[in-house]
This record gives sequence, C-alpha cells and structure tokens, in this order.
Amino acid sequence: MGYRYSRKLTIEWGHCDPAGIVFNPRFFEFFDWSTAQLVHVALALEESSLAAAYGVAGIPLVDTRANFLRPSRYGEEVEIVSEVTHIGRSSFEIDHKLFNRGELAVDAHEKRVWTVRDKSDGRLKSQAIPEDVARILIGA
Amino acid sequence: MGYRYSRKLTIEWGHCDPAGIVFNPRFFEFFDWSTAQLVHVALALEESSLAAAYGVAGIPLVDTRANFLRPSRYGEEVEIVSEVTHIGRSSFEIDHKLFNRGELAVDAHEKRVWTVRDKSDGRLKSQAIPEDVARILIGA
Amino acid sequence: MGYRYSRKLTIEWGHCDPAGIVFNPRFFEFFDWSTAQLVHVALALEESSLAAAYGVAGIPLVDTRANFLRPSRYGEEVEIVSEVTHIGRSSFEIDHKLFNRGELAVDAHEKRVWTVRDKSDGRLKSQAIPEDVARILIGA
Amino acid sequence: MGYRYSRKLTIEWGHCDPAGIVFNPRFFEFFDWSTAQLVHVALALEESSLAAAYGVAGIPLVDTRANFLRPSRYGEEVEIVSEVTHIGRSSFEIDHKLFNRGELAVDAHEKRVWTVRDKSDGRLKSQAIPEDVARILIGA
Repeated sequence: MGYRYSRKLTIEWGHCDPAGIVFNPRFFEFFDWSTAQLVHVALALEESSLAAAYGVAGIPLVDTRANFLRPSRYGEEVEIVSEVTHIGRSSFEIDHKLFNRGELAVDAHEKRVWTVRDKSDGRLKSQAIPEDVARILIGA
Repeated sequence: MGYRYSRKLTIEWGHCDPAGIVFNPRFFEFFDWSTAQLVHVALALEESSLAAAYGVAGIPLVDTRANFLRPSRYGEEVEIVSEVTHIGRSSFEIDHKLFNRGELAVDAHEKRVWTVRDKSDGRLKSQAIPEDVARILIGA
Repeated sequence: MGYRYSRKLTIEWGHCDPAGIVFNPRFFEFFDWSTAQLVHVALALEESSLAAAYGVAGIPLVDTRANFLRPSRYGEEVEIVSEVTHIGRSSFEIDHKLFNRGELAVDAHEKRVWTVRDKSDGRLKSQAIPEDVARILIGA
Repeated sequence: MGYRYSRKLTIEWGHCDPAGIVFNPRFFEFFDWSTAQLVHVALALEESSLAAAYGVAGIPLVDTRANFLRPSRYGEEVEIVSEVTHIGRSSFEIDHKLFNRGELAVDAHEKRVWTVRDKSDGRLKSQAIPEDVARILIGA
C-alpha cells in the first residue's frame, strides 16, 4: 500500500458552527494540511521546501469527495489517517480517514496534480511526477 | 427539475493561497452559503429563520464531491448556480456549478439531511422533510 | 475627510461559532475586503488590478485595533462603513465601523503599508504612496 | 505576573495569501485558540469543559489590538506566548506575542468578558469572574 501519515488535532471553538459541530469546509482545511505533511514527511523534506526541491508550483486538488458520518465537536481530539492510494503520471490519490474516539467520522478521498509554472506564460500546468517521488509515495 | 438559485461573488484576496488561486476549502464555504440561500429563497423565509419556521436544528452535509476544473483568482467574478436534484425522505441533494467567465470551474454535488434536536438527549437526528418543503424544493 | 466606502453583507452560518455569534477573526476578513474594495473603487481600478497599475506587491496590515460592542448573528444584515483617516509617506489609516440594525457593533481601525517587492532580494519593503493615490484616498 | 501559556505551530499553506504571508485574520484565530487553551490549562479542565464547570456561555473578545512587525510564511514554525495581564470584575486581559525564529512577529493584546446566558431572555450577559478562577489566572 501507499505511504501513510497520521496526525492528531483538537477541534477548536472557531472550527465549529452554531450547531456546535465542525463547519464542513474546515475538514477540507484539515485534509489539505495532512496531504502537505504527508508529502513532506514522505520525501524527508522540511515543510514548504517541496517547491525548492522539485520545482513544483503546488499540488492543487482536482477532485475530492467526503462522507460525513458523525459530527465532531469543540474540544474533541480527532485523528486523521492519510494514505496514498494511487499514483498516476502527473496525479496521485489520497484517502483521509478522520477518527473521533476510535470511530470513523469523516471518510474522504482526493486527487492532486503535480503542477509547475509554465515558463512562457506563467500559467500552472501539470507535469509528470518525478520517479523517485512516485516510488516513495506509492510505498514501493 | 428542482429549485434553482444562482448568485455572483467576487474572489477576495483572503480566499486565495500562495499559488494565487482559491484555497479549495473556500469553495465549500461558498457552496454552504448557496445552499442556505437556496433553501431560504425557495421557502420565502428570511435568512436564518428556517429553524423558527420548521424546528430544524440544521441541514448538515453528509456527503459531497467536487471537481476542480479551472482555477479562480483574486478579483475574478464568479457565478454559482445551485439546483436541487433529488429529494429523499429526510435528505436532499444539490448540484453547485461555479462558472468563471462563462466556463465551468468547479462542479460539485452535495447531500444534506433535515435534522432536528432530540428532545430527550439533545442530540441531532434526521427527520422526514415536511411535504410542503419537499414539493417546493423539487420544483413540483 | 478621507475617501469613504460602504457595503452591506449578510452574516453567514459559517461565520458564526457555537455561541451563535460571529467568530471574531471573521470581522478582520470583512475589513480586509472592505479596504481592498475601498482602494479599488477610489482609484477607479478593477478589483485586483492595483498591482498591475502601481507595481505594489500588497498593502499589508501593520497595526489594527477593534472594539466589539454588540454581537452579530447568522442571517443579520450588517453594513460596514470604511473611511481613510490619515495618509502618511508610505502608510495610510482606515476606520471600519460595522453597523447592525443601525447600531455600531464593531469599531475598528487599521494601518496599512504600501509595499513593493525589492528587485534584488525579492523581499517586501515599504515605498512612498504615489501622489495621485494619496490625493484621492485623503479625499482632497 | 499572570498565568502564562505557550505553544508552537507551523504556518500552513492555507493560512497564507497570494503575497505568500499569513493572511492577517488567521492570527486572530491563532490567538483565540491560545486563549482557550490557556484558560483550560490554567484551570486544569479538559478542553471545552469550561461551560460545564462554570456555567459560562463563552468568553467573547470585546477589545483587541495587534501590531504586525514581521511577516510569517508557509512552513515556518512560530511560537505564541500568551499571558494574563489583568483581571477585572467580569473581564480579563491577555497579551499574545508571536515569535518567528526568536523574533517578535506579532504583538497582540485582548480583553475578554466572562459571559453567561440570561435565564429569562437567553441573551449573553457579563458576570463576575469566580474568585478561584481570578486567582489562578492572575497567577497569585
């Protein structure tokens, strides 16, 4: 299986809405950061140094889905387990499972694209994932 | 087809990340507000008066997916067209299409649950959507 | 008096916390956007074209204070009245007053710096505000 | 001096704006959470259990100011040192100093009110801070 990264975080007051549960866009913030951390830890890079090391402009999300199975509330400690599930030519896929007291609370999936900035017009465009990166992410 | 609601908004500086494009969780904020607006406009209710009118504690998201087809940048005006696509017993589904200069930039789908607070234990639980609400949302 | 800009917005569900009132960092988002709008409207520029027109890298906040006098809740329409109160060599100051049903709810003040990117090392540094910009912002 | 609490955090991609630096409202999110943590740690309460222990509805911010001395960027680890500086009858004040590589980057101050929900009309109102809480927060 692919590279796996997990982290714990505490639900903050400001993550929650008037129903007292996490406002759903916050989960996508959590997952975004988990992906960034997974990639940096997997490649043994310092945070934010992916650009310097590989010339990528970013790894934007192109596709995501999420099922919200149980609410999470202020003060609860949750764990996010993230795992690379697929590597394509210029994209890769990650599953994020958020557990709250041992129970699956959010089950999410995302597809990211390895992106560089075009030298002629400055626009973002996809590029093949370097072989060494692909090998590490897929856990080979 | 179901009830349809559209609105325009301008991408703000604070919506964007260091790549200069909208940080993906912001789109879910946009869609959340479009759903709230759609429901209130459809039912001819003032904003936030759904709880008072129908006793709902909220209409939490249980399921979503989104495809990000083109980036949106600071200062760009986008249009979000939202439409109810399905009504179940206690849930309903909405498509959100975000257009940037006439081109589809984000294509999203969500499923929401009609939720009340249980009188005995105070927890949120789903409840059948009132018939008049269902009839309006589905556009019958 | 200085240039003045006002706008109305509706408090969204996602702006509010479990106490049912606006989570305080959201107000700073509102004010940030009001300042961006004020500057662009004052200078008759399209949104986000300040960089292209004047070579600025941004107008970061260096100083702010805010008094929160009354809470604002989901669904309430508020008005933000922003006004330039002072122009310095490379900085300017703005007052933001947020009214909720005619009553002052948040009273804020901010100081911004006119910033360019240094050509040698790429870092942000302050620069004198162009005379025509200063004249317009101060309302002369 | 008053009770002191410090924590480290890493600046995330999503905290930053197109200039590549932290979007200013995020700092107020950081400080809000530092205050919540300080209070819970000081009182030896589990996170979010302040309401249960003392019947407070919240400790809303009524007043804040911040000086932004240096920018912080994606991937940088910062430290926030928070300290109670004053206890009034129903309010208390906290200083938040955010350090980036040992240098003061944001210098902030806030005033919070001890708030309960009025039994008759459900509105939030201030109340005297319990003596034991005041004693601990002021560090006596």
